[in-house]
Amino acid sequence: MKIRVILPAVTKNLAYFENLYLNIMEGQHEISAASLKKGPVSIECEYDEALAIPEVIAKAREAEREGCDAVVVDCFGDPGVKAAREILKIPVVGPGEASIHIAAILGHRFSIVTVLDNVFPLIDNNCRVYGLESKLASIRFINVPVLNLHKGEAGIAELLVEESIKAIEEDGAHVIVLGCTGMSGLAKAVRTGLVGRGYSIPVIDPIVAALKMVQILVEMKLTHSKRTYPYPPEKEIFGYEI
Amino acid sequence: MKIRVILPAVTKNLAYFENLYLNIMEGQHEISAASLKKGPVSIECEYDEALAIPEVIAKAREAEREGCDAVVVDCFGDPGVKAAREILKIPVVGPGEASIHIAAILGHRFSIVTVLDNVFPLIDNNCRVYGLESKLASIRFINVPVLNLHKGEAGIAELLVEESIKAIEEDGAHVIVLGCTGMSGLAKAVRTGLVGRGYSIPVIDPIVAALKMVQILVEMKLTHSKRTYPYPPEKEIFGYEI
Amino acid sequence: MKIRVILPAVTKNLAYFENLYLNIMEGQHEISAASLKKGPVSIECEYDEALAIPEVIAKAREAEREGCDAVVVDCFGDPGVKAAREILKIPVVGPGEASIHIAAILGHRFSIVTVLDNVFPLIDNNCRVYGLESKLASIRFINVPVLNLHKGEAGIAELLVEESIKAIEEDGAHVIVLGCTGMSGLAKAVRTGLVGRGYSIPVIDPIVAALKMVQILVEMKLTHSKRTYPYPPEKEIFGYEI
Amino acid sequence: MKIRVILPAVTKNLAYFENLYLNIMEGQHEISAASLKKGPVSIECEYDEALAIPEVIAKAREAEREGCDAVVVDCFGDPGVKAAREILKIPVVGPGEASIHIAAILGHRFSIVTVLDNVFPLIDNNCRVYGLESKLASIRFINVPVLNLHKGEAGIAELLVEESIKAIEEDGAHVIVLGCTGMSGLAKAVRTGLVGRGYSIPVIDPIVAALKMVQILVEMKLTHSKRTYPYPPEKEIFGYEI
Amino acid sequence: MKIRVILPAVTKNLAYFENLYLNIMEGQHEISAASLKKGPVSIECEYDEALAIPEVIAKAREAEREGCDAVVVDCFGDPGVKAAREILKIPVVGPGEASIHIAAILGHRFSIVTVLDNVFPLIDNNCRVYGLESKLASIRFINVPVLNLHKGEAGIAELLVEESIKAIEEDGAHVIVLGCTGMSGLAKAVRTGLVGRGYSIPVIDPIVAALKMVQILVEMKLTHSKRTYPYPPEKEIFGYEI
Amino acid sequence: MKIRVILPAVTKNLAYFENLYLNIMEGQHEISAASLKKGPVSIECEYDEALAIPEVIAKAREAEREGCDAVVVDCFGDPGVKAAREILKIPVVGPGEASIHIAAILGHRFSIVTVLDNVFPLIDNNCRVYGLESKLASIRFINVPVLNLHKGEAGIAELLVEESIKAIEEDGAHVIVLGCTGMSGLAKAVRTGLVGRGYSIPVIDPIVAALKMVQILVEMKLTHSKRTYPYPPEKEIFGYEI
Repeated sequence: MKIRVILPAVTKNLAYFENLYLNIMEGQHEISAASLKKGPVSIECEYDEALAIPEVIAKAREAEREGCDAVVVDCFGDPGVKAAREILKIPVVGPGEASIHIAAILGHRFSIVTVLDNVFPLIDNNCRVYGLESKLASIRFINVPVLNLHKGEAGIAELLVEESIKAIEEDGAHVIVLGCTGMSGLAKAVRTGLVGRGYSIPVIDPIVAALKMVQILVEMKLTHSKRTYPYPPEKEIFGYEI
Repeated sequence: MKIRVILPAVTKNLAYFENLYLNIMEGQHEISAASLKKGPVSIECEYDEALAIPEVIAKAREAEREGCDAVVVDCFGDPGVKAAREILKIPVVGPGEASIHIAAILGHRFSIVTVLDNVFPLIDNNCRVYGLESKLASIRFINVPVLNLHKGEAGIAELLVEESIKAIEEDGAHVIVLGCTGMSGLAKAVRTGLVGRGYSIPVIDPIVAALKMVQILVEMKLTHSKRTYPYPPEKEIFGYEI
Repeated sequence: MKIRVILPAVTKNLAYFENLYLNIMEGQHEISAASLKKGPVSIECEYDEALAIPEVIAKAREAEREGCDAVVVDCFGDPGVKAAREILKIPVVGPGEASIHIAAILGHRFSIVTVLDNVFPLIDNNCRVYGLESKLASIRFINVPVLNLHKGEAGIAELLVEESIKAIEEDGAHVIVLGCTGMSGLAKAVRTGLVGRGYSIPVIDPIVAALKMVQILVEMKLTHSKRTYPYPPEKEIFGYEI
Repeated sequence: MKIRVILPAVTKNLAYFENLYLNIMEGQHEISAASLKKGPVSIECEYDEALAIPEVIAKAREAEREGCDAVVVDCFGDPGVKAAREILKIPVVGPGEASIHIAAILGHRFSIVTVLDNVFPLIDNNCRVYGLESKLASIRFINVPVLNLHKGEAGIAELLVEESIKAIEEDGAHVIVLGCTGMSGLAKAVRTGLVGRGYSIPVIDPIVAALKMVQILVEMKLTHSKRTYPYPPEKEIFGYEI
Repeated sequence: MKIRVILPAVTKNLAYFENLYLNIMEGQHEISAASLKKGPVSIECEYDEALAIPEVIAKAREAEREGCDAVVVDCFGDPGVKAAREILKIPVVGPGEASIHIAAILGHRFSIVTVLDNVFPLIDNNCRVYGLESKLASIRFINVPVLNLHKGEAGIAELLVEESIKAIEEDGAHVIVLGCTGMSGLAKAVRTGLVGRGYSIPVIDPIVAALKMVQILVEMKLTHSKRTYPYPPEKEIFGYEI
Repeated sequence: MKIRVILPAVTKNLAYFENLYLNIMEGQHEISAASLKKGPVSIECEYDEALAIPEVIAKAREAEREGCDAVVVDCFGDPGVKAAREILKIPVVGPGEASIHIAAILGHRFSIVTVLDNVFPLIDNNCRVYGLESKLASIRFINVPVLNLHKGEAGIAELLVEESIKAIEEDGAHVIVLGCTGMSGLAKAVRTGLVGRGYSIPVIDPIVAALKMVQILVEMKLTHSKRTYPYPPEKEIFGYEI
């Protein structure tokens, strides 16, 4: 199975991410990564998403043309996923949608622990659109910008543990979802930190959830409904080569 | 009061639209229109929206820089409204949000009659995000693309009347919202058609609703909450001059 | 445009209120006020509402007969608005409904800060009936009766600021709605107080919201749906001269 | 146990109704009826309710003063129930609230079959306020005014059977609630009619439900919460002797 | 009227419980109790329920065969109620469902105070299934296992008062529902304790609510809908003598 | 990975089912099946579930003891899944929960097409408990008992296609979920039938969804939250050897 992961940001570390995805999938599938030439260096609000999405769509189309079996967009806000589904036949999955559905299966209510409060309305709205608002205990944030997440991982994990415990104790969370794919790789440390504090709670790494979800969609020969995501009506489009 | 209306599409008829807005506001305010150089010629799905939004945002910023008091985005799907609110202080309103809130005030349930079934999920999701899903009776469509709306207005009005009557009789609508700003100017004919068929029901023209809503926001000195729409975090953005 | 504002209480200060409304509308429209001969001196519960409503309805009918274009009922609980809509063709709007719809447009969630906890169930039920319960962060109160609101306005504003900050910090409010029209004129002071404490949040004055909402309904030639508010069936009514 | 039933209308048939209540309770309790001197002859909309409620409240207070153990308001819209609870200690129950809670216990979804479409928004809003909107399959009406219900009962029962079958087949109703207390005594005929057509479905008579509900509240020594229904704040009230 | 109460647990104290029920009903009805030979000694989770339900069903069938008019299952989680309704014609009611519907009538929001946090998801899910999630303020627990409830009742009542006050102050409860039928008999003490602390709030004893609810269902000649609870399709069943 | 699938019914065809599961997983995992000695021969209502669940739980415990990595319960109603999660550490998944979450990812709304209307309330309640009621377009049935599903598969597929088309056209379904695991193997035929009629819609086979969901849970080292599913409190249990 060929999976293309699109990083919806301008990044120099494409090889790093590609390696990360390969490790997650334990080398079982052919995974390639793409990132943007045009757009922000990270996604932390609706504005960042808006500027990233056109090239995300272009990269998604490229993936299908190159014979990929599925596309993952590597950002918790799932930017461009709906638009890409309209132009593609192959499944497109975002980490936000994949991880909260899995969280809803694993426990009564989940909390999302994310980077900044800027993304709260965006994520909260997504939970409503995905239909899972009644399973959402809370959205919390550690107040660290995306690009600082990898500067001192132990410290970040500790911040995530602290907010997760507040989510459990104050908001009634039974499952924790890491609310930014920049936190990838930290789920284990957060889980261990929580267990050490007496909380044996699942912690979901969203990019892992998205990769696993597309994997089984491909295995089940399922893709999104063309009733929800019909091909865009034919029309003139200026200024884009898509 | 200076209002800038952004047509989120590439169009040759900017003067036509500017004139339309001036008529709606009866010359009381200074209204100017802007349209896109880059993007689709009409908006009929998530994909079209995604390609229009970056320039919508740029035009919104331009409006604020030029001293406008408010911005309206002239499309029922409200493309770019949330992103523009993040970068602006002045109020930004879309016709979808404005018209369904007014519809909710006028009656127990409303139906939206729009162009194509392509936009159904997008509009339905917006109604959820705006919090009004319990007031939405149905979304119906006349199966006419946006750019064909002005070819034979009488016929279009008749189609809208037919779908509105189905919305009233089958779905329990008490108010009709025209679900595309390309239907602007038809509300009166639809209302008359409905009255002629025995249905005295309000019919809301969404672009009128949006213009009137920003007018009173400006008069009340209100704008969107910076808690919901904080300024985007500072970061490098490639390929855009915004 | 002729707007009649009905104060649903027995009051000696009619001139004061009429002046207030004229100031709000900046003299642009012909505004007249009416108050009750029969009923309570303020509205703070379902019981007070019940005793005020019959004369509110009579005053609303009088307004239409006298050629008014719209009616506003000046109380946050919107007493008599639905009944008045049944007997009138011209739009009738209450400050509660108008202000929370505008609040929902301005931010992700709003809180209502009102006078006494007596009105909590009434306002909470109204929010459900208006369809906006998912946008309501909380209802808070300052524990000051309506008629004491104008005794020492600075103190009242400070109490409102305190409760608003709790609404923001503890309940996640992004917009503040003043939950009593007796607080009219305080929105600016509350807003300033909040900004001074670091919270740049919209604060909505409900009577202003209602006046502006009827203004644009009249301008748009819209009124409530007669499907939701049909004329009452003909019947004998004893003891009322309505 | 002494129960006072308040007919929220001006009626000449008080003895008839009193007898009806006694029969329902099989003579086990002391039941007395009261009706209005001031107000409409029947309740079919918000306007009718508004004009009836002040005297309903007065009659409720009278009941408590005369040592009654509970009050029932005999109208499906439950007019004045909330206001009366504020001024009384003894339980006050309406047929609408009592019957839909019992309906929710008896089956997955219920439909309400009522008199006129005028009452649809009022009843639908009540279902939301009572928290049972997700159990409501539909509200249907037979298009017969309240005062005509007793002209030809067989015909009315047949109309109710017809609408009930539509509710079952088209709306998924599993339980039928008669949506007007003027239909009292018809539940058995409707039930028999449905069984004869192959539908073995519970049919709830709302005034019976209300009487039985207050009976058990009194037996359980329970009354409404004074947290929801606190006594009205002390204040001057003009024109009422309550 | 003959009512059979099924204790869904293995217990030696059947006579104690039978006496309790007779006292609740003040000797007015013929009440008999049944308990299990097979199953757990108390119900505190889904697992306990699962092991109790088969014999609950058998006992329910036995009750109908022996001419009972109604069945009550004496456990707040209502184990086996839905399955028993499928095989019986006579009404079957559980204390959870009965008490929260009564609570919803008595106040704006209710809290359930129960034994252990183990039962939180089970009770919360039941509230959703019964349609009353919007009336539920919170579920709290005193951290005492069911079988310890009768060891030192004063202490238990005090714990219940403490959690009830937290429910009122922190969660907005207006009514308290005791969330375990093992707390039977404590409602009065909890109510008194709350009044002594300044909270005049209804406290509902769930087994009383269930007994009273079946009593009036039988008096009203109502039973559950066979549309919701059709008889199980005929089929071979191994290993059960039901 | 070792997966144990528990058929919650007494069946002679265990080998058939085991083979089915192996084919679904393409031989990649070690899959074994278990069925019941005690219980019904098929599951078509709450009563059937209740009699099956005790042995489902016993078989689930056995699976964990024998070193399985995960358990699937092969019935769309997910009988015993919650109880089994309480006593197990390894993930337990049911086809109902797994398939509707995947359906919610694939399209705006899904319909479930099942066997008999007996299971409608059970499945509808499950959708609410799983939090996905807003994504559920409808539940439809073909009126064929479970054990007749394999008598003439072509005919069954055609019935499923017919009901699916009604779900699409009348209820707005964008995705079809087969609502009984006895329909396993028919998804392809239903999908083909729908495509042949012009509906290119995903059709989900629920047992495939459950198997794939546990596979990725195991791969992600995730299991259910012990906060939602704590181990049952220690206590005496009579008559079971679990």
